[in-house]
Amino acid sequence: MIDVNAEIGKLDWSREPQGLYEPIGYTLAAGGKRVRPQLALLATKLFGGNEEDVLPAALALEVFHNFTLLHDDVMDKAQVRRGRPTVHVKWNANTAILSGDQMMIEAYKLLSQVPENKLATTLRLFNQMATEICEGQQYDVDFESRTDVTIPEYMEMIRLKTSVLLATALKIGAYIAGATEEQQEQIYNYGIHLGLAFQIQDDMLDCYGDQATFGKAIGGDIAENKKTYLWLTAAQKGAIDELAMREESMTQRFERILAIYDRLGVKAAAQEAIRLQTNQAINCLDALPQNQYTDQLRAMAHKLEERTK
Amino acid sequence: MIDVNAEIGKLDWSREPQGLYEPIGYTLAAGGKRVRPQLALLATKLFGGNEEDVLPAALALEVFHNFTLLHDDVMDKAQVRRGRPTVHVKWNANTAILSGDQMMIEAYKLLSQVPENKLATTLRLFNQMATEICEGQQYDVDFESRTDVTIPEYMEMIRLKTSVLLATALKIGAYIAGATEEQQEQIYNYGIHLGLAFQIQDDMLDCYGDQATFGKAIGGDIAENKKTYLWLTAAQKGAIDELAMREESMTQRFERILAIYDRLGVKAAAQEAIRLQTNQAINCLDALPQNQYTDQLRAMAHKLEERTK
Repeated sequence: MIDVNAEIGKLDWSREPQGLYEPIGYTLAAGGKRVRPQLALLATKLFGGNEEDVLPAALALEVFHNFTLLHDDVMDKAQVRRGRPTVHVKWNANTAILSGDQMMIEAYKLLSQVPENKLATTLRLFNQMATEICEGQQYDVDFESRTDVTIPEYMEMIRLKTSVLLATALKIGAYIAGATEEQQEQIYNYGIHLGLAFQIQDDMLDCYGDQATFGKAIGGDIAENKKTYLWLTAAQKGAIDELAMREESMTQRFERILAIYDRLGVKAAAQEAIRLQTNQAINCLDALPQNQYTDQLRAMAHKLEERTK
Repeated sequence: MIDVNAEIGKLDWSREPQGLYEPIGYTLAAGGKRVRPQLALLATKLFGGNEEDVLPAALALEVFHNFTLLHDDVMDKAQVRRGRPTVHVKWNANTAILSGDQMMIEAYKLLSQVPENKLATTLRLFNQMATEICEGQQYDVDFESRTDVTIPEYMEMIRLKTSVLLATALKIGAYIAGATEEQQEQIYNYGIHLGLAFQIQDDMLDCYGDQATFGKAIGGDIAENKKTYLWLTAAQKGAIDELAMREESMTQRFERILAIYDRLGVKAAAQEAIRLQTNQAINCLDALPQNQYTDQLRAMAHKLEERTK
């Protein structure tokens, strides 16, 4: 199997003007689990395709994902990403904007290297995904100033913001390997459900995770009064006034909100939602060829329920 | 001939989430001369091609151009664009970043509609152009904090930042119409020289233009001590210390700098540079089929020397 990290390491960013390319190299060198390119390669192999054919698109997906993180960090004024200062902190906001723009273009440059007879469709799938991520980000912003967000609206937002990229990675891998449209659809839907489960799990870990393992500060969502799956579940159960910000320390707030969640069975509801999405993801695999790669996707979904970081 | 403004007007931005798409519609509705799509269409007709085939790419070029203006305005903290508040002023910086990102994706969506057998090369030309614009923008930023910028470096920066988009519009139009590689190269070089002449003329108008006709405040470059063709020519002639900012009113500074330019013959040098680029542009047309469209390109270059806005 192609080593995705090694392939990303081969991309050369020691170009002029350094002010443009250095932040791109810095961003990509931060690591991460490279889930999206791995999924694209895995989907290709599941359908008996050639990894080399899908590699440019796989790398494009990873570069695009990291571009979205870079611009999101500017918009969120995030200080730290993967344990290191964010680009707009290490350099400045203008650098983060411009290098981010160039990163998106680099994604399209990688994409342009997929086999020519597969290019038009791959480009369309990629564009659709890119659009949906921006839409998801906008809904996320819109939700900040709304108190009437429903759980279905939230699920749609995280579908756009998180799931679609995973699903599209799988679908592009399947498409390039020559999977049928029905198969492409099934593996895409697996990715959608997996992403939803992942995001709800992420919301959970912010409350119930272990800081050292999770890799980011616990309680960040609560401190910001962010509308997570947990927040919305509690709100739906009538706790909306209690969830509002009060004059209290962050520790007090964290403990107070956790007590509300405990009282209302919010954790159990979130776990149930994760189980539901995980099962739906696994069910999508039934219609696909059964081999070690389908098994890997199944294992990935099961493992997600137990993930701690 | 296809009405580019009408085609841009047909693009529908009344989609959800409004916060994402409204600023895109606002930006594209501001008008402008639509030079880049016009050049793409004109190049296609010059080589006997079908306007419809190149239209998606022509629109992609215009949308991409407007995306660069949107993000540049955020980075420059510009308040006004084409007589209206910029997006980050009317909305906010985050909106300008995210809607700008989506605008770039929209450009690629339009591009994906070019005839499939022309897509791979068109995408590569477009990506190369997009990269060079970001590089040009980065050099422009780098130049702000340097005092040793040379005129050749400046010419390379404006080639990247301004010329390459015009040149690529022409080349894509020519390529899609089936022009030979040699012809594509010639029309591309015409665009390069035209862009250089245009940018030096732009620098001139900031000093010697008529505010009402030019459409933006005169003397803005001088007020900001921007390294324009005029500034660099004066610096090269030994006036670098005199050009620096002093304790003086903006009017005083404007008059003082203009007096330096007069003394050193800077205006004449810039006019000569424009004439040189214009002639080089026109010379590139000799190797192309001679018809009404080549005549139009020739007239465009001549007219540029007399442009006042």
